[in-house]
Amino acid sequence: MNGADILCDTLLANGIDTCFANPGTSEMHFVAALDRKPDLRCILGLSEGVVTGAADGYARMAEKPAATLLHLGPGLANGLANIHNARRANTPMLNIVGDHASYHLVHDAPLTTDIESLARPMSHWVRRVANAADVGRATAEAVSVAMTPPGQIATLILPADAAWNEAEQAPIRAERLPAWRPGEAKIRQAADAIRRGMQSGSDTVILMSGAALRGEALLTAGRIAQATGARIMAQQSNARVERGAGRVMIDRVPYAVDRALACFARTAQVVLVGAKSPVAFFAYPGKPSSMLPEQCRVVEMAGPGDDLSSALSGLADLLGVRDRVAPAVGERCAPDLPGGALTTATIAQAVAVLSPEGAILCDESVSSGREFFPASYGAAPHDFLQLTGGAIGLGLPLATGAAVACPRRKVIALQADGSAMYTVQALWTQAREALDVVTVIYSNRRYNILHNELKMVGAGAPGHNARRMLDLIDPALDWVHLAMGLGVEAARANDATQFNDLLRAAVASRGPFLIEALI
Amino acid sequence: MNGADILCDTLLANGIDTCFANPGTSEMHFVAALDRKPDLRCILGLSEGVVTGAADGYARMAEKPAATLLHLGPGLANGLANIHNARRANTPMLNIVGDHASYHLVHDAPLTTDIESLARPMSHWVRRVANAADVGRATAEAVSVAMTPPGQIATLILPADAAWNEAEQAPIRAERLPAWRPGEAKIRQAADAIRRGMQSGSDTVILMSGAALRGEALLTAGRIAQATGARIMAQQSNARVERGAGRVMIDRVPYAVDRALACFARTAQVVLVGAKSPVAFFAYPGKPSSMLPEQCRVVEMAGPGDDLSSALSGLADLLGVRDRVAPAVGERCAPDLPGGALTTATIAQAVAVLSPEGAILCDESVSSGREFFPASYGAAPHDFLQLTGGAIGLGLPLATGAAVACPRRKVIALQADGSAMYTVQALWTQAREALDVVTVIYSNRRYNILHNELKMVGAGAPGHNARRMLDLIDPALDWVHLAMGLGVEAARANDATQFNDLLRAAVASRGPFLIEALI
Repeated sequence: MNGADILCDTLLANGIDTCFANPGTSEMHFVAALDRKPDLRCILGLSEGVVTGAADGYARMAEKPAATLLHLGPGLANGLANIHNARRANTPMLNIVGDHASYHLVHDAPLTTDIESLARPMSHWVRRVANAADVGRATAEAVSVAMTPPGQIATLILPADAAWNEAEQAPIRAERLPAWRPGEAKIRQAADAIRRGMQSGSDTVILMSGAALRGEALLTAGRIAQATGARIMAQQSNARVERGAGRVMIDRVPYAVDRALACFARTAQVVLVGAKSPVAFFAYPGKPSSMLPEQCRVVEMAGPGDDLSSALSGLADLLGVRDRVAPAVGERCAPDLPGGALTTATIAQAVAVLSPEGAILCDESVSSGREFFPASYGAAPHDFLQLTGGAIGLGLPLATGAAVACPRRKVIALQADGSAMYTVQALWTQAREALDVVTVIYSNRRYNILHNELKMVGAGAPGHNARRMLDLIDPALDWVHLAMGLGVEAARANDATQFNDLLRAAVASRGPFLIEALI
Repeated sequence: MNGADILCDTLLANGIDTCFANPGTSEMHFVAALDRKPDLRCILGLSEGVVTGAADGYARMAEKPAATLLHLGPGLANGLANIHNARRANTPMLNIVGDHASYHLVHDAPLTTDIESLARPMSHWVRRVANAADVGRATAEAVSVAMTPPGQIATLILPADAAWNEAEQAPIRAERLPAWRPGEAKIRQAADAIRRGMQSGSDTVILMSGAALRGEALLTAGRIAQATGARIMAQQSNARVERGAGRVMIDRVPYAVDRALACFARTAQVVLVGAKSPVAFFAYPGKPSSMLPEQCRVVEMAGPGDDLSSALSGLADLLGVRDRVAPAVGERCAPDLPGGALTTATIAQAVAVLSPEGAILCDESVSSGREFFPASYGAAPHDFLQLTGGAIGLGLPLATGAAVACPRRKVIALQADGSAMYTVQALWTQAREALDVVTVIYSNRRYNILHNELKMVGAGAPGHNARRMLDLIDPALDWVHLAMGLGVEAARANDATQFNDLLRAAVASRGPFLIEALI
């Protein structure tokens, strides 16, 4: 067997059976090995932003990494923005970056680049495979790093000769590190802070992210809130939240600085559960970076890599919160569909009403989707996946990967038009793999958020030249043609009724469909 | 004035009046400043690969840098592949990467990244602006670095507060370094090598790139070849070659290793004029990395940053080559257009016949365009721009930038379908700016080169799984719909006559047009 065989076998032996790829010459032995590994599903993306974003979506839902296969430094570079997003989501990811044969590097052929320097800012771990005999150990190490809680980015550089040379190696099982059990002292501090809030009548926020936003952990947090009067909140952006009717209602920190400041204006103590202390997404002249009042006390009860569920039950125990306390949960919303003009609000309402149980909502709606979160507490139970790192172009790939991980669940992508253009190629992968994704394009024909931001940074009202950087007109994008060009059926909605009808039909059938929502 | 004003004024004072951009919040003050700087033409690209690739195409034709405006680390990352190509083309380029306000970085907001680490592998120079008062000097330095012969990549990191804070600064003129005049000793060595070839009857190659492939320099090289029997050759890939009828005929080093080895099999001496010693693009098992015979003597007469024209005339003088020696030049090809099936050969012939004088041919045809170079010695005089760094996704942006630089010349993009998908968003910029670009998509519905490479690396014949990584079918891309979605008129050619008619019509009219050539 050659190094490429060992790589595939090691991935499979560790349960990694999905690879998103855009290979080149230096990866041809890996590609050839695919014919000998029918259990390894390799999915082509037509640009690397699709590849890495899909791997993120897959891992958020599968709770294990996908591999990516990237072609040298430029292939990695094209995928870095979505690796950045995955890193901010604490997604487990294993990138395999092919490189020239080791002896060829000294010749500085045109595609030679410093892959390590490119990889490091977005990776927790970077390692170059020494030779074919090293492939097994390096791959197992990469799996181990990627699976280290809460999830990390491992980037493995595979020289072509390490892939094509022969070696013998039985697959190595990767070491799996468990999530840390947070210390009792931290949990006690958190309990003290919450009690202080109860006694003084001051505002306490339990700020959560990661696994705290799902399952038992979220339920426990909801009970603590109900019993103590502390508010539970989610970070502004989160990899995955369980939401909808019957699930614990949890608000998130607003994006807009003034609203975020107002949200914490009277907060005296914050308990962090897998979340970071809230900061402004961007700096604005004359506004603070931290969203908390100066005198607010912050207790980091558990970090992202800790066992958040056990931390929260420890906290509930210390506070004497009983299992029978009922948290505030979402109530199934009325099945009323809005008519009239198509707006972000009518879209939010329609999606909340029509999303089927178990839907996976992938949100890169940017400014257009802000109505959706409050409108969907009563939607059918669903997972809600967000853009975590702020690097636009995640949404369509994220939906693609989520659909690969969960073939029996409906994926609905709530997608801003400007961001969608970054990785529009993802639609083709959805068509090729017959993925069950409905994409809703919020077609406002502008980088709408930047109109707001221009005001927020005090740069004044945009004139002709500035508007040309903010508006997506002259010409307008035609999303129906774009989708058809990539093999995905599509239609345009001009009013709310058209939108509702299209969404209902798309939800009822299988396979990719795109709705251009003209708002 | 604020830092953004100073930045714009410094660019304009140094003749940089074109900026390709995809801005975000941290760049809003630059965008606002555009309304006060009507002389600065700012052009929006819908993904950063478009932005940086267009800046490359612009600079290759304008012989001065364009600025790019990129949004933090992820925006830079998205543009790196085409910065890599620009670097390999020795293109002058000035990247402005916005970053968070300096005081905000410590808070590790979601978009915070290590921009320096990302920038360094593709940049000759990276500098972070300290504050608003530093903007003028930093920008002038960046211009100076970018314009250092033969052209360099300067990356300037601009914190948002440096852009929005006030300062006073008259525009600083950037220092301009001239091209080095290569030393007499080197020229003498080159002359000796060529004389040795003449005396011994052995093969001598003058291998050229950069400015040696244009104007007087190319003419002088042609005369030297004619007088001495030395072969002149161009590197495999070059930023810009002047070609066509009446221009010195110069072949290029083949991409395929066996053909490149055959090309130099009997070469005893190579004189490098702005070129690198030829190496294989990729390594292949059992094949050498260097394309030259072991005993071949290599004289580097002039490096890429040297004054190649003066080096060649110095060489001609030493060799006693007179001005009246007539070099071998291309003869205008017969105006015969092929009929029948549409093939890469018929496309090559049609483009050679129908390209108007002064056309700019942007070549990212990858495997499909190999017939074009030999078929077009007799085309009307034109410039020929290539993919220099091997990072696919340059072609459409390159054509976009070249058309911005030369609004009175026809740009024809010879474009492989797989590569085109990387930066297909460029078509929208062509539509918005009404650029005079005809795009020919070689629609073979596969990464055709990888079928060859799979064989070349000895990985065998592709089976079902491997083919799914190599073929762009299930579904096929529909380029006419894609182009229409992006606002560009398009049509499909199924046979040679249809192609000829479409190309003739597209050449005769103005504005962007795309031909999907089904081959």
